[in-house]
Amino acid sequence: MPILDDLRTLFGDAHVLTGDDAPQRDWTGLYRWRPLALVRPGTTGEVAAVMRLAHEAGAPVVPVGGNTGLNGGTSAEGALMLSLERLNRIRTYSPSARTITAEAGVVVDVLHRHVEGAGLIFPLRFGASGSATLGGVLSTNAGGANVLRYGMVRDLCLGLEVVLADGRVMNLMNALHKDNTGYDLRDLMIGAEGTLGIITGAVMRLEPAPVAHATALLGMADLEAALALLNRVQAGTGGAVEAFEFMPEAYMARLARVKPDLACPFAPSPVNILLETATTITGEDPVARLETLLLPDLEAGVITEAVIAQSQAQRAKLWAMREAAAEITFTTPDLVDTDISLPLDRLPGFVERMAARIGALDPAAEILMIAHLGDGNIHYTVYPGTSGPALKAEMRAAIAEQTVALGGSFSAEHGVGLSKRQTMARHKDPVALEVMRAIKAALDPKGILNPDKVLP
Amino acid sequence: MPILDDLRTLFGDAHVLTGDDAPQRDWTGLYRWRPLALVRPGTTGEVAAVMRLAHEAGAPVVPVGGNTGLNGGTSAEGALMLSLERLNRIRTYSPSARTITAEAGVVVDVLHRHVEGAGLIFPLRFGASGSATLGGVLSTNAGGANVLRYGMVRDLCLGLEVVLADGRVMNLMNALHKDNTGYDLRDLMIGAEGTLGIITGAVMRLEPAPVAHATALLGMADLEAALALLNRVQAGTGGAVEAFEFMPEAYMARLARVKPDLACPFAPSPVNILLETATTITGEDPVARLETLLLPDLEAGVITEAVIAQSQAQRAKLWAMREAAAEITFTTPDLVDTDISLPLDRLPGFVERMAARIGALDPAAEILMIAHLGDGNIHYTVYPGTSGPALKAEMRAAIAEQTVALGGSFSAEHGVGLSKRQTMARHKDPVALEVMRAIKAALDPKGILNPDKVLP
Ligand SMILES: Cc1cc2nc3c(=O)[nH]c(=O)nc-3n(C[C@H](O)[C@H](O)[C@H](O)COP(=O)(O)OP(=O)(O)OC[C@H]3O[C@@H](n4cnc5c(N)ncnc54)[C@H](O)[C@@H]3O)c2cc1C
Ligand SMILES: Cc1cc2nc3c(=O)[nH]c(=O)nc-3n(C[C@H](O)[C@H](O)[C@H](O)COP(=O)(O)OP(=O)(O)OC[C@H]3O[C@@H](n4cnc5c(N)ncnc54)[C@H](O)[C@@H]3O)c2cc1C
Repeated sequence: MPILDDLRTLFGDAHVLTGDDAPQRDWTGLYRWRPLALVRPGTTGEVAAVMRLAHEAGAPVVPVGGNTGLNGGTSAEGALMLSLERLNRIRTYSPSARTITAEAGVVVDVLHRHVEGAGLIFPLRFGASGSATLGGVLSTNAGGANVLRYGMVRDLCLGLEVVLADGRVMNLMNALHKDNTGYDLRDLMIGAEGTLGIITGAVMRLEPAPVAHATALLGMADLEAALALLNRVQAGTGGAVEAFEFMPEAYMARLARVKPDLACPFAPSPVNILLETATTITGEDPVARLETLLLPDLEAGVITEAVIAQSQAQRAKLWAMREAAAEITFTTPDLVDTDISLPLDRLPGFVERMAARIGALDPAAEILMIAHLGDGNIHYTVYPGTSGPALKAEMRAAIAEQTVALGGSFSAEHGVGLSKRQTMARHKDPVALEVMRAIKAALDPKGILNPDKVLP
Repeated sequence: MPILDDLRTLFGDAHVLTGDDAPQRDWTGLYRWRPLALVRPGTTGEVAAVMRLAHEAGAPVVPVGGNTGLNGGTSAEGALMLSLERLNRIRTYSPSARTITAEAGVVVDVLHRHVEGAGLIFPLRFGASGSATLGGVLSTNAGGANVLRYGMVRDLCLGLEVVLADGRVMNLMNALHKDNTGYDLRDLMIGAEGTLGIITGAVMRLEPAPVAHATALLGMADLEAALALLNRVQAGTGGAVEAFEFMPEAYMARLARVKPDLACPFAPSPVNILLETATTITGEDPVARLETLLLPDLEAGVITEAVIAQSQAQRAKLWAMREAAAEITFTTPDLVDTDISLPLDRLPGFVERMAARIGALDPAAEILMIAHLGDGNIHYTVYPGTSGPALKAEMRAAIAEQTVALGGSFSAEHGVGLSKRQTMARHKDPVALEVMRAIKAALDPKGILNPDKVLP
């Protein structure tokens, strides 16, 4: 391929990898492909050079960060994979302005470590932060366990640098909290999953680090009681709930089986909640406050089990139980994985109706839920008892249909990629789809950027 | 005009106004025009019908809400003005989900009043809320005095309904906090100032109402000390600062002149700060906490004057001083009005350098600043001592240039409209401008939606 020769001339053989040296599967193993090559430019200018060549040749390009996405978005059959891994510099860091400017290839945990010590956090917490990159989490608008408190990645981003399909570099790199200068192109690029441009750098917002946390694992009988508790703790702490995560009995059972060292410290209840609050005010004691807020439910028997972390190690252990979710979910490859969100008051009803529908489709099916409950976001997974792609497709369709019927979203935080394109076709507003296609055609007229993703 | 006949057939004469019955100027009086007519559709379907006719005829359409925008955005020479005033229904209101779904013509204060009593607020506070509409504040991504705490209007919006240039209706009306289903068209429409579509309805986020406020007017010697105080109060309250507004001596002087009943209760200091904190926790006393946090600065003489509101009436009076800003600014029509933002640490330097530059251009010029200081957002106004459009253009250019040189934005919250198109041409990233034009052409190929606005 002439484009490979051009790329090798530009970057040398070390940065143009082919065959088994290029990635051929995603993190889940559900998606496999044979890419043309993997190219590793080292600067924004070099990313632009790759795109100019690709644009001229009409060659498809799939950007890749940590390759931890869960929707097949990096699948790249016959395409050029463009890795951002060498764009891994922190460009500027301003603790006083509470911003950090970094390149797209910087791994999320590197950001975490970079700012700790200055009393700041980069508030994005999720299981893949050791591999996922800034460009990847921006492109999928990732969520995680702290969204309730700090928002999605979209809410953490102030500025963006993007290479367009034809190699033009768009500079939206400001560090301001207020900027109304024309269309919001930053938010258009965030969550576009590499189909509208390649993110090469970003200015991210930092938050003051809590000085103390209160982290509890609670056993409760039902979801309604858990949601009422969430409201009470929000009101009683002035909105200081950092996380409110739901691990049902079936999740705890699977955890005990796959990762026995992370087993639930008490006999799992139907509803188990990982609750974390925090304070940034020196001298305040969030544990005492949380205990006071939990007391009525404990006395009334609404909370049947409660463990409050007494040390950082115990806190880390409780979080590890939650963050093993993706890992323990995908150990059984024959599954229907979804990522939905619902209005909070519709959640209990959804869980009930959905169980009935899945049971009717396949009485032997097993359901695994894990939820960012405070956001109404459930990762709803089904392991069919009977095999066969038709049944799985039917289950997937039923979950999306039931979600949308209750005012929910069929794609809450993982994005669409390849996995939810059919659902997009069925449930997204048709005019919105037309507008998306028009924008795609305007910004990438040759359709070379992550082709066949997102849009049905 | 055949389109007027068609509109009259559809809506009746009462809703197709011409001549003096249609608006011919903006709130400031700086912009004047003669529109073709003002049409007042009553439903989303009727808005779509207007747009289908206009699209077919290639007739320019300027949407208008409360007509309080400050950038000439509703200027409509020869164009059809499309008023949303009859789309004034609250469609649904869910206190438990903390959302409200309303039509674009609903006035902001109507939203305020609708949710008070349920322990909720629609947290958008600014001087024009008695006339400005939901569609208008969304289309300009308005800010105001509470942005520090609750974000811009963008941050308060969950879902949107939009009529496109050709009359198609795009339904993005969800009430979810997490939704990654393709491109972020909602944020593209917010802040687009009516050039990409007509907003007909929205789902807005509500926030828990504070149960108590602490509102203070403080006199201080300089901006650095004020910014240090802001950080201390944020840290000491866990981020509970609702507003941090800057009214310099010159502002207080003008206020005393134009609105004597709102004169500063003490001899104005160089830097006067309206500071408000609040709590949503029953039983907490924000006044006591604020007093404790102010004490060191009071004792050290860093704060030289302090008034803390002792009643709702006193609080309202302090706010009235701030909210008179637009009114007292535009009483002198010969002015250069701007709306800029800067990184907080660059603010004092900007104020100093800018004063020198303006002084050099026109020693007799008067400078009036009023700032949402916590956001780095200054409304920087100059009243030239010498008349003439060339000097004013030079001043405007100097303010933009100095702002951008310090990493700021030449348009913080009022938007671009007509007033900042030249500044856009000079200071906005050229690739970003190209992308905006491509999107405009894709969504409004005939260029009928608010033509000549925003894009240079
Ligand atoms: C164990 C585990 C736990 C997870 N938990 C969560 C969770 O709690 N919440 C959540 O939201 N997600 C979660 N995820 C999924 C999450 O979306 C991804 O981990 C992350 O956002 C992707 O980052 P990445 O760098 O690996 O991107 P990749 O997987 O490499 O790419 C993701 C997508 O973005 C595109 N892309 C990558 N880089 C760029 C770039 N620079 N410019 C343009 N496009 C680009 C790719 O083409 C692809 O479409 C989890 C994943 C795993 C494996
Ligand atoms: C006294 C005063 C104080 C102010 N204070 C602030 C402040 O603190 N912060 C701040 O950000 N702004 C402030 N503003 C300006 C603010 O931008 C506007 O008041 C408000 O956002 C406009 O609302 P409106 O309904 O009057 O819109 P209009 O003035 O009618 O329209 C504004 C723009 O939006 C477009 N538009 C209107 N409705 C729609 C619609 N439904 N769909 C698509 N486009 C539409 C118009 O074409 C125009 O371009 C102030 C204005 C005044 C007069």
